[in-house]
Amino acid sequence: FAKIKSTTIGFLEKIKKIAMDDPRRIAHAIKVGLTLTLVSTLYYVTPLYDGFGESSMWAVLTVVVVMEYTAGGTLCKGLNRVFATVIAGSLGVGAHHIASLCGQKGEAILLGLFVFLLAASATFSRFIPEVKAKYDYGVTIFILTFSLVAVSSYRVDELIQMAHQRISTIAIGVATCLCVSLVVFPVWAGEDLHKMVASNLDKLANFLEGIETECFGEKSNFESLEGKPFLQVHKSVLNSKAMEDTLCNFAKWEPCHGDFSFRHPWKQYQKIGGLIRQCAASMDALSSYLTTFSKTKPIFKADAELLLEIETACREMSSESAKALRELSSAIRSMTVPSLAKCHVSAATSAAENLRTALSNDITVWETIHVAMISSLLAEL
Amino acid sequence: FAKIKSTTIGFLEKIKKIAMDDPRRIAHAIKVGLTLTLVSTLYYVTPLYDGFGESSMWAVLTVVVVMEYTAGGTLCKGLNRVFATVIAGSLGVGAHHIASLCGQKGEAILLGLFVFLLAASATFSRFIPEVKAKYDYGVTIFILTFSLVAVSSYRVDELIQMAHQRISTIAIGVATCLCVSLVVFPVWAGEDLHKMVASNLDKLANFLEGIETECFGEKSNFESLEGKPFLQVHKSVLNSKAMEDTLCNFAKWEPCHGDFSFRHPWKQYQKIGGLIRQCAASMDALSSYLTTFSKTKPIFKADAELLLEIETACREMSSESAKALRELSSAIRSMTVPSLAKCHVSAATSAAENLRTALSNDITVWETIHVAMISSLLAEL
Repeated sequence: FAKIKSTTIGFLEKIKKIAMDDPRRIAHAIKVGLTLTLVSTLYYVTPLYDGFGESSMWAVLTVVVVMEYTAGGTLCKGLNRVFATVIAGSLGVGAHHIASLCGQKGEAILLGLFVFLLAASATFSRFIPEVKAKYDYGVTIFILTFSLVAVSSYRVDELIQMAHQRISTIAIGVATCLCVSLVVFPVWAGEDLHKMVASNLDKLANFLEGIETECFGEKSNFESLEGKPFLQVHKSVLNSKAMEDTLCNFAKWEPCHGDFSFRHPWKQYQKIGGLIRQCAASMDALSSYLTTFSKTKPIFKADAELLLEIETACREMSSESAKALRELSSAIRSMTVPSLAKCHVSAATSAAENLRTALSNDITVWETIHVAMISSLLAEL
Repeated sequence: FAKIKSTTIGFLEKIKKIAMDDPRRIAHAIKVGLTLTLVSTLYYVTPLYDGFGESSMWAVLTVVVVMEYTAGGTLCKGLNRVFATVIAGSLGVGAHHIASLCGQKGEAILLGLFVFLLAASATFSRFIPEVKAKYDYGVTIFILTFSLVAVSSYRVDELIQMAHQRISTIAIGVATCLCVSLVVFPVWAGEDLHKMVASNLDKLANFLEGIETECFGEKSNFESLEGKPFLQVHKSVLNSKAMEDTLCNFAKWEPCHGDFSFRHPWKQYQKIGGLIRQCAASMDALSSYLTTFSKTKPIFKADAELLLEIETACREMSSESAKALRELSSAIRSMTVPSLAKCHVSAATSAAENLRTALSNDITVWETIHVAMISSLLAEL
């Protein structure tokens, strides 16, 4: 019994943490519940029910599948659903008219053939990367609606009326979803993307600052490096690609909001994201190198003076790079051109230049080059 | 007109390429068409239609949304759908019984409240990572079915019969999908995962072999390094995490097939994948270092003898590491314990050891250490 109690408490704490991490999650849950209840009044209120009949169910169904966490996601799914339904519905009615010319038995065979051909080709089209990225849901709905209309045309007499009812209820469902998700505490995918890119830059800066204080600082102590948290901050950056692509895809659907206009250059975020990941990959290499380094404690053969020179240069490089990254992240946050970042980068590069003349193969050199790349890209933005 | 023609030809070539890259895609498209046609006979054949009525539509709907490319995906979605429908359906009937005690008006209010509460809490549960990974689709269907049953119970008199019809048609739809996707040319997520991990190891080996021949080979030519294809092979490995997680998740649902038993250690693949990505990150760093290196042409200050020593050691390290990786990938393919890999790794490590005494900070050292980690993990498998 005590075990059940402890697991329950653990579970509740987990739930609480999830809610605390992002309170918009609670708002989203409430929004979904609200929209569903709103749409189901179509069914409860008798005058409305008389207008739409059984089809009001489709509004409920639409709300459940269309409501997404971000406003862009809801827009993407909702518009996909409406357009796919209209196109597939008209095609289905057309298929019914052609098939009905062939008698009772021929109609069934012909309808079956149509459904087979359309479903197979539409399914195949989902393997095309462009379709997969933007219209995956639309294609599913297209197959669904076409099959439903074509197949049920075999039995239902008032096909046009049914199609009309269904399309209008689906449109009502989508419209309700859009209203709720765009107006009531909207969660913008574009904003999330923007913040994610900035916070990823901050994470990289944290890493470099950690390097500066822990490795080349006054109390530098290579032996106790393992397990230090700053060596792990860049890990989450490395795996951010999938999330970034989804957000960027949704952000493209969003109307203008806040500081973001309709044709905001979302693609640039993906480019910066790619560079950030490349930078994080270098840091990953550097971090595993440092961990090994601290384990093996190699004997330094170089003379003490050179060693001191290297250390100073490394410290300077990491501190200047970290400053440049911080500058970039705050520039992204405030959407200004980073002016200070450039001089930090040039300071870091000159430090690297000095070091390169002293020692031909050093590790921290790339980072500055990556940072320089990022900053030049951002200046173009 | 010529422009239209050229774009059409370009499009057709693209389609052809997609189909050629993986002919199973065509098979999948045909399978979906076939299943849909098969299920729609429920509607065309009069005796079957009399048994299920309008509900046969649900079989069509189920097929469209449940059929996935991999067998594991179909199983995951199908089972999620059946169980969620049964649970939500019974809850919905229960909610109807409670609500019907409160009179006409009270029933509508109470039903609305139930729908709101359930939808909100179920939506929130989707933010829990474990639920999101495994039961996301099930939760959607749960909300959907509960809302449909609860809301329509307000108007439909024979609720139990309707629920019964729907559950049986959904079960028929899922069963048809499972039959087709498990029996007719099945695409196993587990097999794909297995092959992906092995081919990722091969890509890393290609990279190292490229390093060996291009940088430390007889015709070593640092200046022409940029744009060489071997410097890019590891990029796709870095972004393989999302794909790997999806496949691993689906693979867990699959029954035993071929060389894979039911409780195959799929988690190990994720671990190996993580190590492979870490290794690829080091290579990424190394590759951008080499590119910069070839651009700047630094002056070697070290004496020629040391330089030769370093080159030999680097060549040996990359060749031995590449051999070890190849060995590992073939060991994964044939599912045996890699015996030769260990000696390659030890050869690479000893070469690295020799080098380390000569030069304290060198770059290629990590790779061997990563390879050693991978091999030790694999030996445990």
